[in-house]
Amino acid sequence: MTESTRPAKKAPMREVLAEAAFQLFLDRGFEQTTVDDIVARAGVGRRSFFRYFPSKEDAVFPDHERCLADVTAFLDGADGGDPVGTVCDAARLVLRMYAANPEFSVQRYRLTREVPGLRTYELSVVRRYERTMTGYLRARFARERDGALRAEVIAASVVAAHNNGLRSWLRSGGEGDPYEAVDHALGMVRGVWGSADERARPAAAEEDVIVMVAPKGAPMWQVVQRIESAFGEG
Amino acid sequence: MTESTRPAKKAPMREVLAEAAFQLFLDRGFEQTTVDDIVARAGVGRRSFFRYFPSKEDAVFPDHERCLADVTAFLDGADGGDPVGTVCDAARLVLRMYAANPEFSVQRYRLTREVPGLRTYELSVVRRYERTMTGYLRARFARERDGALRAEVIAASVVAAHNNGLRSWLRSGGEGDPYEAVDHALGMVRGVWGSADERARPAAAEEDVIVMVAPKGAPMWQVVQRIESAFGEG
Repeated sequence: MTESTRPAKKAPMREVLAEAAFQLFLDRGFEQTTVDDIVARAGVGRRSFFRYFPSKEDAVFPDHERCLADVTAFLDGADGGDPVGTVCDAARLVLRMYAANPEFSVQRYRLTREVPGLRTYELSVVRRYERTMTGYLRARFARERDGALRAEVIAASVVAAHNNGLRSWLRSGGEGDPYEAVDHALGMVRGVWGSADERARPAAAEEDVIVMVAPKGAPMWQVVQRIESAFGEG
Repeated sequence: MTESTRPAKKAPMREVLAEAAFQLFLDRGFEQTTVDDIVARAGVGRRSFFRYFPSKEDAVFPDHERCLADVTAFLDGADGGDPVGTVCDAARLVLRMYAANPEFSVQRYRLTREVPGLRTYELSVVRRYERTMTGYLRARFARERDGALRAEVIAASVVAAHNNGLRSWLRSGGEGDPYEAVDHALGMVRGVWGSADERARPAAAEEDVIVMVAPKGAPMWQVVQRIESAFGEG
């Protein structure tokens, strides 16, 4: 942020290190690259690296800490609308980070698939997003039966849906609109778990009823799809 | 298996090593215990340890490989019944492993919460169960719209529900029936995602209809609960 006062060409040290590291990981392989290699390329001392990144793995995912902070801040500041929709919107903040730099995101995806240590690291990061969402939902469902259980299942569903859409986009080489696949996937979760229209509907409408008719042998998710259209969504 | 021909008191080497390791982890801490400490306590050579366990972490979860194999075999051999119910039954196989030794499971849970490396390891293991379940569901949903997406979201939901129930039981110190909380949690997922009774119902019943009436402002999951009881489940 304060970097904007510096000459335009001089990137912040953290960015310089992350870029040097990533280029070396691509060129030589993650395991074969040492921190010494990275700082030599970036032209700084060894201690500078560890000032910005606790480990080599962290340098591969330099934006997640900020994004986690964004997600947390977003959920902390969310109003009382549909909890599931809110968490889906939080997931879109994560997508925004990937979408901001398609080429880097695709290269990193390929690198991560090849390096078990990076996959494990990524799992931990994903788990932190999930826990943040679970915490938000648990608070929202605090007074409801099975609220904590529902919070965990919904957060896991939102994360799985987000990752499904994100992965489709990354596998395609980052072509096209990443929000399309992710919003479609999140829409499925909202359809199943979200309130119909908790916020928009006037209080009197609580008395409204819908009548839904479906083949009794239909799978439950299909039934839910029909209800969804009865509610006038999707 | 072949161990049964040995004198009853002589535990298999793998078990001896896992027990020695776990006792040391409890006594001295995970990080403070070396592989040399473990083999010294077990009275074997250093290479014996690595023959059975690729790492210290693996010795903390000695049963997961077998359990993963059990889950895979179970899903490979499953008939064409309700896919979501089948995956829930697979999750119960994981619970069975924890339930077989409550004291060990509770101690390990406490140890894992204290050691970041073990939590990360556990995340990887959980992810492998999830992927196995996803693979099964994806095959079952192969010809359906959004089948792969649904497979991932359902597998994530089943794992989250299982872990929610399991954790309740572990937190309680392993008292009572672990299946109660887990089956309750899995029941929620089945209610939302499972077929109503795909297998039991005769073909003609496809024509049956149910009529469901609910307040239009009700959250979707409550609507689903009502449908569930209309289907005569739960």
